[in-house]
Amino acid sequence: MRGVFILFKLVVKGTAFSSIDSKNVKVFENSLFCISEAGMIAKIISPDQEEYEATIQEYTSKNKFQELAHDQYILPGFIDLHIHAPQWAQAGTALDLPLYEWLNTYTFPLEAKFSDVQFAEQVYSDLVSQLIKNGTTTALYFATVHREASLRLAEICSEKGQRGLVGKVVMDDQEQNPEYYRDASATTALVETELFIQEVLELNKQTPQGVYPVVTPRFIPSCTDDSLKGLGALATKYDIHIQSHCSESDWAHTFVQERFGKNDAYALNDFGLITEKSVMAHCGFLSDDDMKLFAEKGTAVAHCPISNAYFGNAVTPIARLLNDYQVETGLGSDISGGFSPSLFDNIRQAVMSSRMLNDGVDKDCCGEKRGVSGSSITLNEAFYLATAGGGESLSLPIGKLAVDYIWDVQIVNTKELPLFSDEEPLLTIFQKILYLTRPESIDEVWIQGKKVHDKNKKELEVQE
Amino acid sequence: MRGVFILFKLVVKGTAFSSIDSKNVKVFENSLFCISEAGMIAKIISPDQEEYEATIQEYTSKNKFQELAHDQYILPGFIDLHIHAPQWAQAGTALDLPLYEWLNTYTFPLEAKFSDVQFAEQVYSDLVSQLIKNGTTTALYFATVHREASLRLAEICSEKGQRGLVGKVVMDDQEQNPEYYRDASATTALVETELFIQEVLELNKQTPQGVYPVVTPRFIPSCTDDSLKGLGALATKYDIHIQSHCSESDWAHTFVQERFGKNDAYALNDFGLITEKSVMAHCGFLSDDDMKLFAEKGTAVAHCPISNAYFGNAVTPIARLLNDYQVETGLGSDISGGFSPSLFDNIRQAVMSSRMLNDGVDKDCCGEKRGVSGSSITLNEAFYLATAGGGESLSLPIGKLAVDYIWDVQIVNTKELPLFSDEEPLLTIFQKILYLTRPESIDEVWIQGKKVHDKNKKELEVQE
Ligand SMILES: [Zn+2]
Ligand SMILES: [Zn+2]
Repeated sequence: MRGVFILFKLVVKGTAFSSIDSKNVKVFENSLFCISEAGMIAKIISPDQEEYEATIQEYTSKNKFQELAHDQYILPGFIDLHIHAPQWAQAGTALDLPLYEWLNTYTFPLEAKFSDVQFAEQVYSDLVSQLIKNGTTTALYFATVHREASLRLAEICSEKGQRGLVGKVVMDDQEQNPEYYRDASATTALVETELFIQEVLELNKQTPQGVYPVVTPRFIPSCTDDSLKGLGALATKYDIHIQSHCSESDWAHTFVQERFGKNDAYALNDFGLITEKSVMAHCGFLSDDDMKLFAEKGTAVAHCPISNAYFGNAVTPIARLLNDYQVETGLGSDISGGFSPSLFDNIRQAVMSSRMLNDGVDKDCCGEKRGVSGSSITLNEAFYLATAGGGESLSLPIGKLAVDYIWDVQIVNTKELPLFSDEEPLLTIFQKILYLTRPESIDEVWIQGKKVHDKNKKELEVQE
Repeated sequence: MRGVFILFKLVVKGTAFSSIDSKNVKVFENSLFCISEAGMIAKIISPDQEEYEATIQEYTSKNKFQELAHDQYILPGFIDLHIHAPQWAQAGTALDLPLYEWLNTYTFPLEAKFSDVQFAEQVYSDLVSQLIKNGTTTALYFATVHREASLRLAEICSEKGQRGLVGKVVMDDQEQNPEYYRDASATTALVETELFIQEVLELNKQTPQGVYPVVTPRFIPSCTDDSLKGLGALATKYDIHIQSHCSESDWAHTFVQERFGKNDAYALNDFGLITEKSVMAHCGFLSDDDMKLFAEKGTAVAHCPISNAYFGNAVTPIARLLNDYQVETGLGSDISGGFSPSLFDNIRQAVMSSRMLNDGVDKDCCGEKRGVSGSSITLNEAFYLATAGGGESLSLPIGKLAVDYIWDVQIVNTKELPLFSDEEPLLTIFQKILYLTRPESIDEVWIQGKKVHDKNKKELEVQE
């Protein structure tokens, strides 16, 4: 037996599923995932390869080998492309209200409370733990206007081992935002944002899995031209991510048309906010031209299907974004416009909403043209959105099981699934996992090669 | 202190939520629920009533008192009005296919396997346990064409303590059903159905919570006129429940129009299948006249919002059924057209689908008339469907917390919910429970005054 072994931190043996592209899922049956000290997948060895048995022996003897149980499977960790961290405190409430009332009666008063860092600490700490337990290994967060509390969110991600991209929210328009909750002026908003960027970049230096500052105009209606322009400049200066809401609803879409005589996409582009590192939430009302612009610029769409059922006024045409325009697209929970912190729930809703767009909803409407034919997406495509699509959207090597990708994974068990035969094809098991897994069946979560959640242990030491 | 105590089997102290009607939910704060030996709610005592403290003392001393923890709440058990028990084995799979292919490639071959009673035993036993863990205390089941396996399902419900209404499926049309899976003839179908009815009525005598035989033509396209007519007669003869699929999809709707020149509702009515004890699944394509007929006859609709996203071709107009026509309406999981065994998931989807019907789904469609205004239902209404609405649909005293209703409840804990203040209003907690509870947070399930599930105990003795 020959064999020169690179020194891996860990070798994990198990069966895994990963997107190859938006349509196809690859099954790794009983493969060896060799994790480097840096937390990357350095090598994947399948059972038919010569070095398979020797690698198992070598790493077993080194006590650096983990073999999954027969009812455990590996999935890439989920990437939540759009989530309002402070709104976790009101998740699942007041969703019977129209958007305007929901914002002004509940959401803005709640977000204003994050001037209190102690309160922020409590909510953010619980949220990040919950997301990890739900298999979310990376999240792109809206925090609040408050720099201090927003930094605390980044610190909590850093401490708990989650990859967090965090934005201090900018909302400086005096007309559009309540006096008790807004940036005092465009200048203040920009100064605070730049300070925040510098603080998070500093924090990132001591965070193996990465924490990233994100330029975050809430949405066009809440920002002045001055702040939008300044934010575009900051994004360029620091070469960092950008996030906002884009063409979310009838109201927002019409508002921007009236103010700028163009759609959100082109208006944001004028301010330098449509870049390769931009992620735009919702996008239900993108025109074909908007989609082309996104494709050209490498700007991504964060699809939030649960939230859109409440506040979107239309279903975002994901099949068209993926197939006709190759726009980078991922999935967002949009807590608390969406109620669920689980991307499993959002995967399911993405499929269902796409089928409802395809077939239409009103039996009395439109004769033959009730729906938009060709709009259905498959379960594979929805899985892609939650994983590899999210990674591409963020321009990070995450969301796939492949060499040189980061070892961000969830290990799920199938104890509660309806499996009555030993002959179920692995892709059938994959479907049952996606449709029926609950967070309580996520046994372990790993981020950057480190175990950050173990269902069977109460508390894990996640600090180095 | 005065007090003449009726002898209760148990007194439970806790905070509970129950529908009063389709729009309003009543909160019972720290109330005493006094359960009779027969498993009924004999009395509810609120803290301001004189006998409150004395009752607690009395039943504590008798060791017949249970007090909920501060983070536990009582909800009525859920009533699943439409579920295909054999399809549990394929839940969550093949949902990317069109209905016809799904039925013929997967569903019929699977159901055919239930000629094997041992296989049936395995699937049904797992399903009933899973449903109970999910808080479903009553279920209206489609089994398969096989009498023996269908009876086994009723026996399993009886043994595990669930209230089960079970139908041996009739599908005798030689053209429409595959040779390997159908009733041999209308006569055979009717003979087997009548035997099944008698066997289940016999079993019911030794089942405190009740098991009920249900007359079950699969749907009009799969049945001959002879079998439909004979089934109507059997329902009348035994005065029992009836279930079928009604106006589910474009295809089914059109098929019935072509065969009978009328909609499903009127066609079924001609065969005596639209009665006070009828529950019709889906009903996405009911006309106003059909709704009026249902209201007159007391026939109920089983709304299956998850399944309908896949196979329904339209959203069932629940607001119109409830508000304009006062049709009895409940909720069904429709395993495995719907993937989830949880009515929590279906409550959420019922709200979302209704909002998508209200707002429309295609941004480019229909101008001002994109949706059907007035179609949104509230979370309270969706909760009503899953509980009290289901009870009314079945004409049984279940689904509500009220005197003379059966003590069928689930006790949920809020440990995993985002609650950061001791001052959250109880109705806010109620919303968080409905939107965020997972089955793993259901601590206990009671049916007919007996505990049939205790999350913290592995196996319970549920037999008397
Ligand atoms: Zn948002
Ligand atoms: Zn069905």
